[in-house]
Amino acid sequence: MNDTLAGFVSFVSSGPGDPELLTMRAVDRLRGAEVVLYDALAAGPILDLAGSAELVSVGKRAGRPSAKQESVNALLVEHAQAGRRVVRLKSGDAGIFGRLEEEIAALQAAGIGFEIVPGVPSALAAAAVAGIPLTRRLTARRLQFVTGADVTGGVPQGLNWAAIADPQATTVVFMGQRNFPDLARELIARGLPADTPALLAEAVGHPGQKLLRSTVAGLARLLETEGPSPHPALIFYGPLAE
Amino acid sequence: MNDTLAGFVSFVSSGPGDPELLTMRAVDRLRGAEVVLYDALAAGPILDLAGSAELVSVGKRAGRPSAKQESVNALLVEHAQAGRRVVRLKSGDAGIFGRLEEEIAALQAAGIGFEIVPGVPSALAAAAVAGIPLTRRLTARRLQFVTGADVTGGVPQGLNWAAIADPQATTVVFMGQRNFPDLARELIARGLPADTPALLAEAVGHPGQKLLRSTVAGLARLLETEGPSPHPALIFYGPLAE
Repeated sequence: MNDTLAGFVSFVSSGPGDPELLTMRAVDRLRGAEVVLYDALAAGPILDLAGSAELVSVGKRAGRPSAKQESVNALLVEHAQAGRRVVRLKSGDAGIFGRLEEEIAALQAAGIGFEIVPGVPSALAAAAVAGIPLTRRLTARRLQFVTGADVTGGVPQGLNWAAIADPQATTVVFMGQRNFPDLARELIARGLPADTPALLAEAVGHPGQKLLRSTVAGLARLLETEGPSPHPALIFYGPLAE
Repeated sequence: MNDTLAGFVSFVSSGPGDPELLTMRAVDRLRGAEVVLYDALAAGPILDLAGSAELVSVGKRAGRPSAKQESVNALLVEHAQAGRRVVRLKSGDAGIFGRLEEEIAALQAAGIGFEIVPGVPSALAAAAVAGIPLTRRLTARRLQFVTGADVTGGVPQGLNWAAIADPQATTVVFMGQRNFPDLARELIARGLPADTPALLAEAVGHPGQKLLRSTVAGLARLLETEGPSPHPALIFYGPLAE
Protein backbone atom coordinates (compact mmCIF):
# COMPACT_ATOMS: atom_id res chain seq x y z
CA MET A 1 0.00 0.00 0.00
CA ASN A 2 1.28 3.44 -0.87
CA ASP A 3 1.92 5.33 2.34
CA THR A 4 2.34 8.66 0.62
CA LEU A 5 -1.44 8.73 0.60
CA ALA A 6 -1.72 8.56 4.41
CA GLY A 7 -3.31 11.72 5.79
CA PHE A 8 -4.07 12.70 2.22
CA VAL A 9 -7.38 13.32 0.46
CA SER A 10 -8.15 12.09 -3.06
CA PHE A 11 -11.13 13.85 -4.57
CA VAL A 12 -12.37 11.08 -6.81
CA SER A 13 -14.88 11.70 -9.60
CA SER A 14 -17.39 8.86 -9.63
CA GLY A 15 -18.72 9.54 -13.11
CA PRO A 16 -22.46 9.01 -13.54
CA GLY A 17 -22.64 5.93 -11.29
CA ASP A 18 -21.92 3.00 -13.60
CA PRO A 19 -18.67 1.35 -12.40
CA GLU A 20 -17.58 0.80 -16.03
CA LEU A 21 -17.34 4.57 -16.38
CA LEU A 22 -14.88 4.94 -13.52
CA THR A 23 -11.33 5.69 -14.55
CA MET A 24 -8.54 3.23 -13.74
CA ARG A 25 -7.12 5.77 -11.29
CA ALA A 26 -10.47 6.14 -9.51
CA VAL A 27 -10.64 2.35 -9.09
CA ASP A 28 -7.10 2.36 -7.69
CA ARG A 29 -7.90 5.09 -5.17
CA LEU A 30 -11.12 3.42 -4.04
CA ARG A 31 -9.31 0.10 -3.54
CA GLY A 32 -6.63 1.79 -1.45
CA ALA A 33 -8.96 3.94 0.65
CA GLU A 34 -9.37 3.62 4.40
CA VAL A 35 -12.38 5.90 4.51
CA VAL A 36 -14.72 7.03 1.72
CA LEU A 37 -16.93 10.09 2.18
CA TYR A 38 -19.55 9.87 -0.54
CA ASP A 39 -22.50 11.83 -1.88
CA ALA A 40 -25.84 10.11 -2.26
CA LEU A 41 -25.50 10.37 -6.04
CA ALA A 42 -22.20 8.52 -5.91
CA ALA A 43 -23.59 5.60 -3.88
CA GLY A 44 -24.42 2.20 -5.37
CA PRO A 45 -22.17 -0.45 -6.92
CA ILE A 46 -19.15 1.85 -7.08
CA LEU A 47 -18.80 1.63 -3.32
CA ASP A 48 -18.24 -2.14 -3.55
CA LEU A 49 -14.80 -1.34 -4.94
CA ALA A 50 -13.79 0.29 -1.69
CA GLY A 51 -13.31 -3.10 -0.01
CA SER A 52 -12.91 -2.75 3.73
CA ALA A 53 -12.89 1.05 3.86
CA GLU A 54 -15.21 2.82 6.25
CA LEU A 55 -18.06 4.29 4.19
CA VAL A 56 -19.52 7.60 5.30
CA SER A 57 -22.53 9.08 3.51
CA VAL A 58 -22.48 12.85 3.49
CA GLY A 59 -25.83 12.77 1.84
CA LYS A 60 -25.74 15.40 -0.89
CA ARG A 61 -28.73 14.77 -3.08
CA ALA A 62 -30.39 16.98 -5.67
CA GLY A 63 -33.27 18.98 -4.27
CA ARG A 64 -33.23 17.46 -0.78
CA PRO A 65 -31.76 18.58 2.50
CA SER A 66 -28.23 17.28 3.01
CA ALA A 67 -25.32 17.47 5.40
CA LYS A 68 -24.16 21.04 5.75
CA GLN A 69 -21.12 21.87 3.65
CA GLU A 70 -19.26 22.90 6.81
CA SER A 71 -19.73 19.49 8.37
CA VAL A 72 -18.44 17.77 5.21
CA ASN A 73 -15.38 20.01 5.33
CA ALA A 74 -14.83 19.21 9.01
CA LEU A 75 -15.13 15.45 8.43
CA LEU A 76 -12.58 15.55 5.63
CA VAL A 77 -10.08 17.35 7.82
CA GLU A 78 -10.71 15.08 10.79
CA HIS A 79 -10.19 11.83 8.88
CA ALA A 80 -7.08 13.13 7.11
CA GLN A 81 -5.59 14.40 10.38
CA ALA A 82 -6.09 10.93 11.81
CA GLY A 83 -3.58 9.80 9.14
CA ARG A 84 -6.04 7.93 6.96
CA ARG A 85 -6.10 7.52 3.21
CA VAL A 86 -9.27 9.45 2.49
CA VAL A 87 -11.34 9.30 -0.69
CA ARG A 88 -13.90 12.03 -1.16
CA LEU A 89 -16.16 10.51 -3.81
CA LYS A 90 -18.07 13.13 -5.74
CA SER A 91 -20.65 12.37 -8.39
CA GLY A 92 -19.93 13.15 -12.04
CA ASP A 93 -16.72 15.14 -12.30
CA ALA A 94 -15.54 16.51 -8.96
CA GLY A 95 -14.77 19.94 -10.41
CA ILE A 96 -18.24 20.71 -11.74
CA PHE A 97 -21.00 22.01 -9.45
CA GLY A 98 -19.77 20.03 -6.46
CA ARG A 99 -18.58 22.83 -4.19
CA LEU A 100 -15.09 21.37 -4.51
CA GLU A 101 -13.57 24.77 -3.96
CA GLU A 102 -14.94 24.96 -0.43
CA GLU A 103 -13.61 21.51 0.45
CA ILE A 104 -10.18 22.34 -0.96
CA ALA A 105 -10.08 25.58 1.03
CA ALA A 106 -10.76 23.65 4.25
CA LEU A 107 -7.90 21.22 3.51
CA GLN A 108 -5.51 24.01 2.60
CA ALA A 109 -6.35 25.86 5.82
CA ALA A 110 -5.45 22.69 7.74
CA GLY A 111 -2.28 22.03 5.71
CA ILE A 112 -3.56 18.75 4.27
CA GLY A 113 -2.43 17.50 0.87
CA PHE A 114 -4.91 16.51 -1.80
CA GLU A 115 -5.27 15.44 -5.42
CA ILE A 116 -8.15 15.65 -7.87
CA VAL A 117 -8.94 12.56 -9.94
CA PRO A 118 -10.96 13.84 -12.89
CA GLY A 119 -13.82 11.80 -14.29
CA VAL A 120 -16.66 11.51 -16.73
CA PRO A 121 -19.14 14.33 -16.16
CA SER A 122 -22.71 13.04 -15.94
CA ALA A 123 -23.60 15.37 -18.80
CA LEU A 124 -21.19 13.60 -21.14
CA ALA A 125 -22.40 10.20 -20.04
CA ALA A 126 -25.98 11.27 -20.72
CA ALA A 127 -25.07 12.57 -24.17
CA ALA A 128 -23.31 9.29 -24.96
CA VAL A 129 -26.41 7.32 -23.95
CA ALA A 130 -28.52 9.61 -26.14
CA GLY A 131 -26.06 9.06 -29.00
CA ILE A 132 -25.43 12.77 -29.50
CA PRO A 133 -22.26 14.81 -29.73
CA LEU A 134 -22.25 18.07 -27.75
CA THR A 135 -20.62 20.30 -30.32
CA ARG A 136 -21.01 20.61 -34.07
CA ARG A 137 -18.99 22.62 -36.49
CA LEU A 138 -20.72 25.93 -37.35
CA THR A 139 -24.04 25.32 -35.59
CA ALA A 140 -23.24 24.27 -32.00
CA ARG A 141 -19.87 25.79 -31.36
CA ARG A 142 -20.11 26.43 -27.67
CA LEU A 143 -20.91 23.99 -24.88
CA GLN A 144 -21.98 25.34 -21.52
CA PHE A 145 -22.95 23.94 -18.14
CA VAL A 146 -25.16 25.95 -15.79
CA THR A 147 -27.18 25.26 -12.65
CA GLY A 148 -30.92 25.73 -12.67
CA ALA A 149 -31.16 26.23 -8.91
CA ASP A 150 -29.26 28.08 -6.23
CA VAL A 151 -28.74 26.71 -2.71
CA THR A 152 -32.26 27.76 -1.70
CA GLY A 153 -33.75 25.93 -4.71
CA GLY A 154 -34.74 29.15 -6.51
CA VAL A 155 -33.73 30.36 -9.97
CA PRO A 156 -30.12 31.57 -9.62
CA GLN A 157 -29.58 35.32 -9.57
CA GLY A 158 -27.41 36.98 -12.19
CA LEU A 159 -27.78 34.43 -14.99
CA ASN A 160 -26.14 35.55 -18.23
CA TRP A 161 -29.22 35.40 -20.45
CA ALA A 162 -27.35 36.34 -23.64
CA ALA A 163 -25.20 33.28 -23.04
CA ILE A 164 -27.92 30.80 -22.16
CA ALA A 165 -30.53 31.95 -24.69
CA ASP A 166 -28.01 31.44 -27.51
CA PRO A 167 -29.50 29.05 -30.11
CA GLN A 168 -26.01 28.17 -31.40
CA ALA A 169 -24.80 26.58 -28.19
CA THR A 170 -25.44 23.30 -26.43
CA THR A 171 -26.57 24.11 -22.90
CA VAL A 172 -26.74 21.61 -20.07
CA VAL A 173 -28.77 22.60 -17.03
CA PHE A 174 -27.84 20.82 -13.80
CA MET A 175 -30.44 20.66 -11.01
CA GLY A 176 -32.93 22.31 -13.33
CA GLN A 177 -36.12 20.26 -13.28
CA ARG A 178 -38.07 22.34 -10.79
CA ASN A 179 -37.25 25.74 -12.28
CA PHE A 180 -37.20 24.83 -15.95
CA PRO A 181 -40.73 26.15 -16.69
CA ASP A 182 -39.67 29.61 -15.41
CA LEU A 183 -36.29 29.43 -17.09
CA ALA A 184 -37.81 28.38 -20.41
CA ARG A 185 -40.31 31.24 -20.40
CA GLU A 186 -37.49 33.73 -19.94
CA LEU A 187 -35.22 32.04 -22.50
CA ILE A 188 -37.97 32.16 -25.10
CA ALA A 189 -38.74 35.81 -24.26
CA ARG A 190 -35.07 36.54 -24.90
CA GLY A 191 -35.01 34.96 -28.31
CA LEU A 192 -34.40 31.24 -27.92
CA PRO A 193 -36.81 29.55 -30.36
CA ALA A 194 -39.53 27.70 -28.44
CA ASP A 195 -39.01 24.66 -30.68
CA THR A 196 -35.31 24.34 -29.87
CA PRO A 197 -34.70 20.62 -29.21
CA ALA A 198 -34.54 19.72 -25.53
CA LEU A 199 -33.68 16.45 -23.82
CA LEU A 200 -34.33 15.41 -20.23
CA ALA A 201 -31.90 12.74 -19.00
CA GLU A 202 -32.96 11.10 -15.74
CA ALA A 203 -30.89 8.84 -13.49
CA VAL A 204 -28.13 8.42 -16.05
CA GLY A 205 -25.83 5.52 -15.16
CA HIS A 206 -28.34 4.19 -12.61
CA PRO A 207 -31.19 1.69 -12.83
CA GLY A 208 -34.24 3.53 -14.15
CA GLN A 209 -32.18 5.63 -16.55
CA LYS A 210 -34.57 7.45 -18.89
CA LEU A 211 -34.33 9.88 -21.79
CA LEU A 212 -37.14 12.14 -22.85
CA ARG A 213 -36.90 14.08 -26.11
CA SER A 214 -38.95 17.22 -26.62
CA THR A 215 -38.50 20.94 -27.25
CA VAL A 216 -37.77 23.76 -24.83
CA ALA A 217 -41.45 24.77 -24.73
CA GLY A 218 -42.68 21.17 -24.67
CA LEU A 219 -40.41 20.10 -21.83
CA ALA A 220 -41.33 23.20 -19.81
CA ARG A 221 -45.02 22.37 -20.26
CA LEU A 222 -44.47 18.77 -19.24
CA LEU A 223 -42.52 19.66 -16.10
CA GLU A 224 -45.10 22.26 -15.19
CA THR A 225 -47.94 19.76 -15.55
CA GLU A 226 -46.34 16.68 -14.06
CA GLY A 227 -43.79 18.23 -11.72
CA PRO A 228 -40.16 17.15 -11.46
CA SER A 229 -39.35 13.45 -11.24
CA PRO A 230 -37.83 12.23 -7.98
CA HIS A 231 -34.63 11.29 -9.83
CA PRO A 232 -31.72 13.60 -10.47
CA ALA A 233 -31.87 14.82 -14.04
CA LEU A 234 -30.00 16.92 -16.55
CA ILE A 235 -31.70 19.07 -19.14
CA PHE A 236 -29.99 19.62 -22.50
CA TYR A 237 -31.12 22.13 -25.08
CA GLY A 238 -29.71 23.33 -28.37
CA PRO A 239 -29.59 22.14 -31.97
CA LEU A 240 -27.99 18.79 -31.03
CA ALA A 241 -30.32 17.87 -28.17
CA GLU A 242 -32.53 15.61 -30.20
CA MET B 1 -15.11 -12.24 -27.48
CA ASN B 2 -18.41 -10.48 -27.83
CA ASP B 3 -19.67 -10.94 -31.36
CA THR B 4 -22.39 -8.34 -31.04
CA LEU B 5 -19.61 -5.85 -31.63
CA ALA B 6 -18.72 -7.27 -35.07
CA GLY B 7 -19.36 -4.70 -37.77
CA PHE B 8 -19.93 -2.18 -35.03
CA VAL B 9 -18.12 1.04 -34.17
CA SER B 10 -17.28 2.10 -30.62
CA PHE B 11 -16.41 5.77 -30.38
CA VAL B 12 -14.02 5.60 -27.45
CA SER B 13 -12.96 8.70 -25.54
CA SER B 14 -9.24 8.44 -24.80
CA GLY B 15 -9.21 11.10 -22.08
CA PRO B 16 -6.13 13.31 -22.06
CA GLY B 17 -3.66 10.53 -22.93
CA ASP B 18 -2.69 9.03 -19.57
CA PRO B 19 -3.90 5.39 -19.53
CA GLU B 20 -4.90 5.75 -15.85
CA LEU B 21 -7.56 8.21 -16.98
CA LEU B 22 -9.22 5.76 -19.34
CA THR B 23 -12.52 4.38 -18.15
CA MET B 24 -12.90 0.66 -17.52
CA ARG B 25 -15.23 0.47 -20.52
CA ALA B 26 -12.70 2.16 -22.78
CA VAL B 27 -10.07 -0.39 -21.72
CA ASP B 28 -12.52 -3.20 -22.45
CA ARG B 29 -13.30 -1.86 -25.93
CA LEU B 30 -9.62 -1.35 -26.80
CA ARG B 31 -8.77 -4.90 -25.68
CA GLY B 32 -11.56 -6.32 -27.84
CA ALA B 33 -10.87 -4.21 -30.93
CA GLU B 34 -9.80 -5.63 -34.28
CA VAL B 35 -8.98 -2.23 -35.72
CA VAL B 36 -8.37 1.10 -33.99
CA LEU B 37 -8.61 4.36 -35.92
CA TYR B 38 -6.90 6.96 -33.75
CA ASP B 39 -6.15 10.66 -33.73
CA ALA B 40 -2.58 11.81 -33.22
CA LEU B 41 -3.58 13.26 -29.85
CA ALA B 42 -4.85 9.87 -28.75
CA ALA B 43 -1.63 8.04 -29.65
CA GLY B 44 0.95 6.90 -27.10
CA PRO B 45 0.72 4.30 -24.31
CA ILE B 46 -3.05 3.95 -24.62
CA LEU B 47 -2.59 2.11 -27.90
CA ASP B 48 -0.62 -0.63 -26.14
CA LEU B 49 -3.93 -1.79 -24.66
CA ALA B 50 -5.25 -2.62 -28.12
CA GLY B 51 -3.19 -5.82 -28.24
CA SER B 52 -3.14 -7.29 -31.71
CA ALA B 53 -5.58 -4.86 -33.31
CA GLU B 54 -4.63 -3.12 -36.53
CA LEU B 55 -3.73 0.48 -35.64
CA VAL B 56 -4.59 3.17 -38.17
CA SER B 57 -3.55 6.76 -37.57
CA VAL B 58 -6.01 9.24 -39.01
CA GLY B 59 -3.68 11.99 -37.96
CA LYS B 60 -5.85 14.73 -36.50
CA ARG B 61 -3.51 17.05 -34.70
CA ALA B 62 -4.03 20.59 -33.48
CA GLY B 63 -2.87 23.20 -35.95
CA ARG B 64 -1.44 20.78 -38.50
CA PRO B 65 -2.77 19.33 -41.72
CA SER B 66 -4.55 16.02 -41.15
CA ALA B 67 -6.51 13.37 -42.95
CA LYS B 68 -9.64 14.84 -44.48
CA GLN B 69 -12.78 14.25 -42.46
CA GLU B 70 -14.37 12.53 -45.45
CA SER B 71 -11.59 9.97 -45.61
CA VAL B 72 -11.94 9.23 -41.89
CA ASN B 73 -15.67 8.71 -42.41
CA ALA B 74 -15.01 6.40 -45.36
CA LEU B 75 -12.45 4.33 -43.42
CA LEU B 76 -14.86 3.84 -40.53
CA VAL B 77 -17.56 2.57 -42.84
CA GLU B 78 -15.17 0.34 -44.74
CA HIS B 79 -13.78 -1.42 -41.66
CA ALA B 80 -17.21 -1.87 -40.10
CA GLN B 81 -18.65 -3.24 -43.34
CA ALA B 82 -15.82 -5.78 -43.37
CA GLY B 83 -17.40 -7.09 -40.13
CA ARG B 84 -14.66 -5.91 -37.80
CA ARG B 85 -14.93 -4.70 -34.22
CA VAL B 86 -13.89 -1.09 -34.80
CA VAL B 87 -12.73 1.37 -32.17
CA ARG B 88 -12.64 5.01 -33.19
CA LEU B 89 -10.35 6.48 -30.53
CA LYS B 90 -10.89 10.19 -30.08
CA SER B 91 -8.87 12.38 -27.76
CA GLY B 92 -10.46 13.85 -24.63
CA ASP B 93 -14.18 13.20 -24.70
CA ALA B 94 -15.45 12.05 -28.09
CA GLY B 95 -18.45 14.40 -28.00
CA ILE B 96 -16.52 17.64 -27.62
CA PHE B 97 -14.94 19.38 -30.62
CA GLY B 98 -14.13 16.12 -32.38
CA ARG B 99 -16.52 16.31 -35.32
CA LEU B 100 -18.23 13.24 -33.95
CA GLU B 101 -21.48 14.29 -35.55
CA GLU B 102 -20.03 13.93 -39.04
CA GLU B 103 -18.69 10.45 -38.30
CA ILE B 104 -22.02 9.35 -36.81
CA ALA B 105 -23.87 10.65 -39.87
CA ALA B 106 -21.64 8.55 -42.14
CA LEU B 107 -22.33 5.41 -40.09
CA GLN B 108 -26.06 6.07 -40.01
CA ALA B 109 -26.13 6.57 -43.77
CA ALA B 110 -24.49 3.15 -44.15
CA GLY B 111 -26.75 1.47 -41.57
CA ILE B 112 -23.88 0.70 -39.18
CA GLY B 113 -24.44 0.45 -35.43
CA PHE B 114 -22.36 2.45 -32.99
CA GLU B 115 -21.95 3.37 -29.34
CA ILE B 116 -20.28 6.32 -27.64
CA VAL B 117 -18.03 5.60 -24.67
CA PRO B 118 -17.77 8.88 -22.80
CA GLY B 119 -14.53 9.90 -21.14
CA VAL B 120 -12.58 12.49 -19.25
CA PRO B 121 -12.44 15.73 -21.24
CA SER B 122 -8.88 17.08 -21.47
CA ALA B 123 -10.14 20.30 -19.92
CA LEU B 124 -11.19 18.50 -16.75
CA ALA B 125 -7.92 16.60 -16.60
CA ALA B 126 -6.01 19.87 -16.94
CA ALA B 127 -8.05 21.48 -14.17
CA ALA B 128 -7.39 18.50 -11.92
CA VAL B 129 -3.64 18.79 -12.52
CA ALA B 130 -3.86 22.51 -11.75
CA GLY B 131 -5.78 21.69 -8.58
CA ILE B 132 -8.71 23.92 -9.47
CA PRO B 133 -12.44 23.35 -9.58
CA LEU B 134 -14.24 24.71 -12.63
CA THR B 135 -17.28 26.16 -10.94
CA ARG B 136 -17.74 28.05 -7.71
CA ARG B 137 -20.93 29.04 -5.98
CA LEU B 138 -21.88 32.65 -6.78
CA THR B 139 -18.72 33.71 -8.62
CA ALA B 140 -18.11 31.10 -11.34
CA ARG B 141 -21.53 29.68 -12.00
CA ARG B 142 -21.20 28.84 -15.65
CA LEU B 143 -18.61 26.64 -17.35
CA GLN B 144 -18.17 26.91 -21.10
CA PHE B 145 -16.02 25.30 -23.76
CA VAL B 146 -15.29 27.12 -27.03
CA THR B 147 -12.86 26.73 -29.90
CA GLY B 148 -10.35 29.45 -30.64
CA ALA B 149 -9.91 28.48 -34.28
CA ASP B 150 -12.12 27.43 -37.15
CA VAL B 151 -11.11 24.81 -39.71
CA THR B 152 -8.97 27.34 -41.57
CA GLY B 153 -7.13 28.29 -38.36
CA GLY B 154 -8.72 31.75 -38.13
CA VAL B 155 -10.81 33.25 -35.32
CA PRO B 156 -14.24 31.59 -35.57
CA GLN B 157 -17.05 33.70 -36.99
CA GLY B 158 -20.12 34.44 -34.93
CA LEU B 159 -18.64 34.10 -31.45
CA ASN B 160 -21.08 35.05 -28.70
CA TRP B 161 -19.01 37.79 -27.08
CA ALA B 162 -21.49 38.45 -24.28
CA ALA B 163 -21.06 34.82 -23.29
CA ILE B 164 -17.30 34.57 -23.55
CA ALA B 165 -16.44 37.99 -22.09
CA ASP B 166 -18.43 37.16 -18.94
CA PRO B 167 -16.18 37.52 -15.87
CA GLN B 168 -18.42 35.22 -13.82
CA ALA B 169 -17.84 32.14 -15.95
CA THR B 170 -14.99 29.69 -16.37
CA THR B 171 -14.13 29.59 -20.05
CA VAL B 172 -11.97 26.93 -21.67
CA VAL B 173 -10.62 27.70 -25.13
CA PHE B 174 -9.69 24.66 -27.23
CA MET B 175 -7.20 25.15 -30.09
CA GLY B 176 -6.75 28.74 -28.99
CA GLN B 177 -3.02 29.41 -28.72
CA ARG B 178 -2.53 31.06 -32.09
CA ASN B 179 -5.53 33.36 -31.95
CA PHE B 180 -5.54 34.17 -28.24
CA PRO B 181 -3.85 37.57 -28.63
CA ASP B 182 -6.65 38.68 -30.98
CA LEU B 183 -9.35 37.07 -28.87
CA ALA B 184 -8.03 38.63 -25.66
CA ARG B 185 -7.99 42.12 -27.18
CA GLU B 186 -11.63 41.78 -28.13
CA LEU B 187 -12.64 40.21 -24.81
CA ILE B 188 -11.04 43.08 -22.90
CA ALA B 189 -12.66 45.64 -25.20
CA ARG B 190 -15.99 44.01 -24.35
CA GLY B 191 -15.53 44.28 -20.62
CA LEU B 192 -13.56 41.26 -19.45
CA PRO B 193 -11.03 42.65 -16.94
CA ALA B 194 -7.48 42.42 -18.36
CA ASP B 195 -6.27 40.96 -15.07
CA THR B 196 -8.75 38.05 -15.12
CA PRO B 197 -6.72 34.94 -14.17
CA ALA B 198 -5.70 32.79 -17.15
CA LEU B 199 -4.01 29.43 -17.31
CA LEU B 200 -2.30 27.75 -20.25
CA ALA B 201 -2.24 23.96 -19.97
CA GLU B 202 0.11 22.28 -22.45
CA ALA B 203 0.33 18.59 -23.31
CA VAL B 204 -1.87 17.53 -20.40
CA GLY B 205 -1.58 13.80 -19.72
CA HIS B 206 1.52 13.55 -21.92
CA PRO B 207 5.24 13.79 -21.17
CA GLY B 208 6.16 17.46 -21.13
CA GLN B 209 2.90 18.48 -19.47
CA LYS B 210 3.19 22.12 -18.40
CA LEU B 211 1.00 24.71 -16.69
CA LEU B 212 1.51 28.43 -17.02
CA ARG B 213 -0.42 30.82 -14.78
CA SER B 214 -0.95 34.41 -15.86
CA THR B 215 -3.77 36.83 -16.65
CA VAL B 216 -5.75 37.26 -19.84
CA ALA B 217 -3.62 40.25 -20.87
CA GLY B 218 -0.37 38.63 -19.72
CA LEU B 219 -0.97 35.38 -21.54
CA ALA B 220 -1.96 37.22 -24.72
CA ARG B 221 1.29 39.22 -24.54
CA LEU B 222 3.33 36.09 -23.98
CA LEU B 223 1.76 34.19 -26.89
CA GLU B 224 2.16 37.23 -29.12
CA THR B 225 5.86 37.52 -28.25
CA GLU B 226 6.84 33.87 -28.17
CA GLY B 227 4.30 32.36 -30.51
CA PRO B 228 2.30 29.21 -29.77
CA SER B 229 4.07 26.15 -28.42
CA PRO B 230 4.21 23.10 -30.69
CA HIS B 231 2.12 21.16 -28.15
CA PRO B 232 -1.65 21.09 -28.03
CA ALA B 233 -2.85 23.38 -25.28
CA LEU B 234 -5.97 24.55 -23.55
CA ILE B 235 -6.47 28.09 -22.26
CA PHE B 236 -8.62 28.66 -19.18
CA TYR B 237 -9.76 32.04 -17.99
CA GLY B 238 -12.07 33.22 -15.24
CA PRO B 239 -11.96 33.74 -11.50
CA LEU B 240 -10.87 30.14 -10.80
CA ALA B 241 -8.08 29.92 -13.39
CA GLU B 242 -5.28 30.63 -10.96
